[in-house]
Amino acid sequence: MGRWEPDAAGRLREAAMALYAERGFDGTTVADIADRAGVTARTFFRHFTDKREVLFAGSELLEQSMVKALADAPADAGPMEAVAAAVLASAEFFDDIPRDYSRRRQDLINATPELRERELIKMAALTSALTDGLLERGVAVDVAPLAAETGVAVFRVSFERWISAPDGEPIADVIRSTLKTLKTL
Amino acid sequence: MGRWEPDAAGRLREAAMALYAERGFDGTTVADIADRAGVTARTFFRHFTDKREVLFAGSELLEQSMVKALADAPADAGPMEAVAAAVLASAEFFDDIPRDYSRRRQDLINATPELRERELIKMAALTSALTDGLLERGVAVDVAPLAAETGVAVFRVSFERWISAPDGEPIADVIRSTLKTLKTL
Repeated sequence: MGRWEPDAAGRLREAAMALYAERGFDGTTVADIADRAGVTARTFFRHFTDKREVLFAGSELLEQSMVKALADAPADAGPMEAVAAAVLASAEFFDDIPRDYSRRRQDLINATPELRERELIKMAALTSALTDGLLERGVAVDVAPLAAETGVAVFRVSFERWISAPDGEPIADVIRSTLKTLKTL
Repeated sequence: MGRWEPDAAGRLREAAMALYAERGFDGTTVADIADRAGVTARTFFRHFTDKREVLFAGSELLEQSMVKALADAPADAGPMEAVAAAVLASAEFFDDIPRDYSRRRQDLINATPELRERELIKMAALTSALTDGLLERGVAVDVAPLAAETGVAVFRVSFERWISAPDGEPIADVIRSTLKTLKTL
């Protein structure tokens, strides 16, 4: 394993973000990122499968916590109630990440087609996972995908609002307000 | 422009579908597709920008017809009503395409990550277009993206149900039923 690497993943992430901003995503190699972070390329690949994944490493955790909240919702909760609990669980995940990091990361994703594609794939995977979770709760097959898609829509819209709001409203409040807006539709 | 090419685009599409099924997406080149369709590669590129685009050439038309229906909805229609009109307008688009083609196309997309990415990009573009259309109708900025995302969710779920239903229910009926399910959520 070589020398001690305090939070190599975190340093690789920061190095990648800085380099993508400086040289663009296409102009940055894994070697550049490892170099800037002061680790070897081998260390990079111990943490991430490719240079896109550096920005999405947390998405499995996010998915897991949402799927868990869905499963843990009371047995008598309706599909949208359970999905709302799952979306609200994402707030805890983002509480640990500075909003400024999330905003810079999103700007980069929006400006880079390859990253945008990866993000859409992650969102599609999240939708599938929530659909499966709803089916396991006994939700009907014609209802589960729609509830899951709607939940992911609420998540996306809330996240977008959260990072662009000037006042730094907590994401949990933004999600609650988006869920309320959904009801009025 | 060379010789007369009756429906070269249609023949290229069929050739691509057949080859992707036989050799896989990665194992098929633009030259293969042009060859099978009996046209030159130059003709291919007059119709499509790349071998992914062959399967998505209709998506601009679909988006345009949905955006038009959104704009044409009565001035006093609420955001979800206008979005529902847009989603229902997609039915006309699919009326012209054999359901079997849509199903084969979707199987191929689901099995091919590169095509899946392109599809997700198209859906994201559709969401943006509907959001813009809603903003133009005077819908509030915190409501428009959510209504658009929800509309695209209804479209995706309906399309998926339509191609997998054994009974060949018309897509317009499936959309109406999905909209009804959404209300119960």
